[in-house]
Amino acid sequence: MEYTKINAEILAKLVALVGADNVLTSDEKLKEYSHDEVTDPAYHHLPEAVVLAENTSQVAAVVKLANEFHFPVVPRGAGTGLACGAVPIYGGIVLSLEKMNKIIEINDEAMYAIVEPGVRTSDLQKAVDAKGCLYAGDPCSGDSCFIGGNIATNAGGNKAVKYGTTRHQIYSIEIVNPQGKIVNLGARLKKQTTGYCLDQLVIGSEGTLGIITQATVKLVAKPEFSMDLLAIYESPEDAIGTVNKIIKAGITPTCVEYMDNITIKSVERYLETKLQGSDKGNYLIVTVEGTSEDDLDEKACTLDEICGESGASDVLVAEPARIWQTRKAFAEAVRAESIVVCKEDVVCPVDQEPLLLEEILRLAEKYNLTTRIASHAGDGNIHLNILKQPAEDYDEWNARVNANQQELYAFIYAHGGRLSGEHGIGYKRKNLMQQFTNPEELEMMRAIKKALDPNNILNPGKIFDVE
Amino acid sequence: MEYTKINAEILAKLVALVGADNVLTSDEKLKEYSHDEVTDPAYHHLPEAVVLAENTSQVAAVVKLANEFHFPVVPRGAGTGLACGAVPIYGGIVLSLEKMNKIIEINDEAMYAIVEPGVRTSDLQKAVDAKGCLYAGDPCSGDSCFIGGNIATNAGGNKAVKYGTTRHQIYSIEIVNPQGKIVNLGARLKKQTTGYCLDQLVIGSEGTLGIITQATVKLVAKPEFSMDLLAIYESPEDAIGTVNKIIKAGITPTCVEYMDNITIKSVERYLETKLQGSDKGNYLIVTVEGTSEDDLDEKACTLDEICGESGASDVLVAEPARIWQTRKAFAEAVRAESIVVCKEDVVCPVDQEPLLLEEILRLAEKYNLTTRIASHAGDGNIHLNILKQPAEDYDEWNARVNANQQELYAFIYAHGGRLSGEHGIGYKRKNLMQQFTNPEELEMMRAIKKALDPNNILNPGKIFDVE
Repeated sequence: MEYTKINAEILAKLVALVGADNVLTSDEKLKEYSHDEVTDPAYHHLPEAVVLAENTSQVAAVVKLANEFHFPVVPRGAGTGLACGAVPIYGGIVLSLEKMNKIIEINDEAMYAIVEPGVRTSDLQKAVDAKGCLYAGDPCSGDSCFIGGNIATNAGGNKAVKYGTTRHQIYSIEIVNPQGKIVNLGARLKKQTTGYCLDQLVIGSEGTLGIITQATVKLVAKPEFSMDLLAIYESPEDAIGTVNKIIKAGITPTCVEYMDNITIKSVERYLETKLQGSDKGNYLIVTVEGTSEDDLDEKACTLDEICGESGASDVLVAEPARIWQTRKAFAEAVRAESIVVCKEDVVCPVDQEPLLLEEILRLAEKYNLTTRIASHAGDGNIHLNILKQPAEDYDEWNARVNANQQELYAFIYAHGGRLSGEHGIGYKRKNLMQQFTNPEELEMMRAIKKALDPNNILNPGKIFDVE
Repeated sequence: MEYTKINAEILAKLVALVGADNVLTSDEKLKEYSHDEVTDPAYHHLPEAVVLAENTSQVAAVVKLANEFHFPVVPRGAGTGLACGAVPIYGGIVLSLEKMNKIIEINDEAMYAIVEPGVRTSDLQKAVDAKGCLYAGDPCSGDSCFIGGNIATNAGGNKAVKYGTTRHQIYSIEIVNPQGKIVNLGARLKKQTTGYCLDQLVIGSEGTLGIITQATVKLVAKPEFSMDLLAIYESPEDAIGTVNKIIKAGITPTCVEYMDNITIKSVERYLETKLQGSDKGNYLIVTVEGTSEDDLDEKACTLDEICGESGASDVLVAEPARIWQTRKAFAEAVRAESIVVCKEDVVCPVDQEPLLLEEILRLAEKYNLTTRIASHAGDGNIHLNILKQPAEDYDEWNARVNANQQELYAFIYAHGGRLSGEHGIGYKRKNLMQQFTNPEELEMMRAIKKALDPNNILNPGKIFDVE
């Protein structure tokens, strides 16, 4: 891919568009914007400049300039991605949306909010909660990630079993398209059949088809009654096998999370605390919401029965703050154990999940891998973290990780799964995407990218290569 | 648009691909496939041949042939459309999916079904019901329409408030794309972020981006407890105004339907029966599902309260068969009154619906229109039927209908609405689509159509014109 370098002329034009304070070129700043949460330096790349946009017109003007001079524009939210989606692999500029961070409107009557892309997810959650509403998008990184990034990657999270992923929380988006035009896609409607569903095409396209500059998100009535149950299992497969039974029973839990024993022990060490059943238990955490105390009690009884019949040794009502501290400490506990980690984000049909878990454990043994597993089990989405131990040689470890990946992904695709449930493809999984995706489907994606971004300006080299 | 006529050579090749029995050219057959449910002959157009496909390979081969010889292929389900989406306005062939009518699999454990496109919607509903599951897609024409057509138009219907429209019932689709390639889009997953969301792009694209040849649909647990409430209001705006209050209360009804008084009287005449409160009442029909009798009772109490406070004179538990016979007789009752009807399918945000209804009534008076109104009120989707009276001159009536349309649509777009909630654009609303849609959005749609269908083979001239 040949692009024009960010020269003095382009820099001057950028300064004219957004102001000198919003064009960063110091080594320190370039480094800061050269990576996301992926720690491996092999996946870092310096931008030639960082541009901070303050409004949609500036974003549009910058993208037009990029088309005129032919340099890459890599949109960036909070930089909390796990797939190098915001890493400028061809240089050019990183266009940060961090200054576009206003909640424009919360309408608790009509149940929607209008937000800029740089709003922190937890800030939106808290603001609508104060008005008696729920924004149901809830990625684990909610305290740091931005709504714009959530939309660009179709972030998942803890409430997706009941409410769906980020794409299901969105009424409409304002975007700057790859040619620098401002376009509104979708509408604040329960339904419509008025042409192509472009909003859903752009959501999850990881900044390759448009830069999200505003979003109208759905709010729902805050559930009045909620309960967290902790079921403890000796057998991992039994725990995971419970999920399909819960769904089949018509319960619609808000979330079903899984943590394996070795991961519970890792969190125990990290939090310096003793966790229930940690001697040999695997966790299934089930959150249910109800319309009344009675409704909740009835669901809890049904769940207790299902979990008991499925092999749980204990089913307890969990203290929400504590159980969620445990679940959410997963990522930090892993990081405390090892800086070098391969994070898999595989997803399969829920009824195939016990098989997948069995295969993951089999392969971990075969390749002698140190694993920590937590799973959005209710969605069939398993986070398999493979830790490099200090004693292991990087290249040798990496070779085993890659061999594991090849076998695992082949298994997953054979069982109707996909390689990413919620982290996305970005740059990191591009080659695997190419390998495992149906060529006809990829060809359609490429045709759309070329049609909407003929100069290949927006986040080039992500998800797939155009040529 | 210049296309090759279906000549003897092409006919012979079609016969070679699908067999002589599956290539129809008699005048009678061509006429049968020249229209959908739109009765106005101005919207009919004869195909040059009708081709019945028996499997996906045949569909693919026919589309490849069409690309080679350059003739239009217009896919068709049951022909129950209301927007002329399946009318071959440039001639060529109508490709009917009616023979691909098998339910391939119903899996009540993993909660999905695999179907061919020509399966009648009610046949699927009944088949899964027998296994204790619910397929939640439920267009009013369910007894006649096909699943393939439901997907192609993103059909709505009665259960969309709780379960969403057809696009929300679909895990994955197999399509033949405009270049004749067989491609699987989507997957049987609760979530994924693995490239562009092409399934949602093709769903609702009205046969312009792909021919649906198979679908994997979601099943949900059949709700054990369900209740239909009928609230009767003197004021139409009060009735419609109740909807947002119900949603805000966190009830999540399965459906909320509205019928105005004049329409209730029309149905009364058609069914030759006396309906409750028909002297001056407008109906709000609310269906709620519950996890138990108690849960249902509690919801019913809350609904009774909300409806009472919002101006309902009566709130009754309705006999399901009778109330749904009343609601579903709407279309037939209108047809019995007049063969010439303009059917509007406008949609707006639910909180704007009272304003929209008020405007519809104001305009009806201004333009002296005979109207019958039923509404999927829970979705903000209003079906306004404008009947030509025998005494009215067609051209003069039509002029008033058009003038009404211009004012009404301007109002709707100013209030965040769209011109079609569930019927689609097809050929019938193409010009209005062009007039009311943001040019940048249309430009993106056109670019995608051109990229995926460079020869403009699949259902040309629908939704928008390419050049």
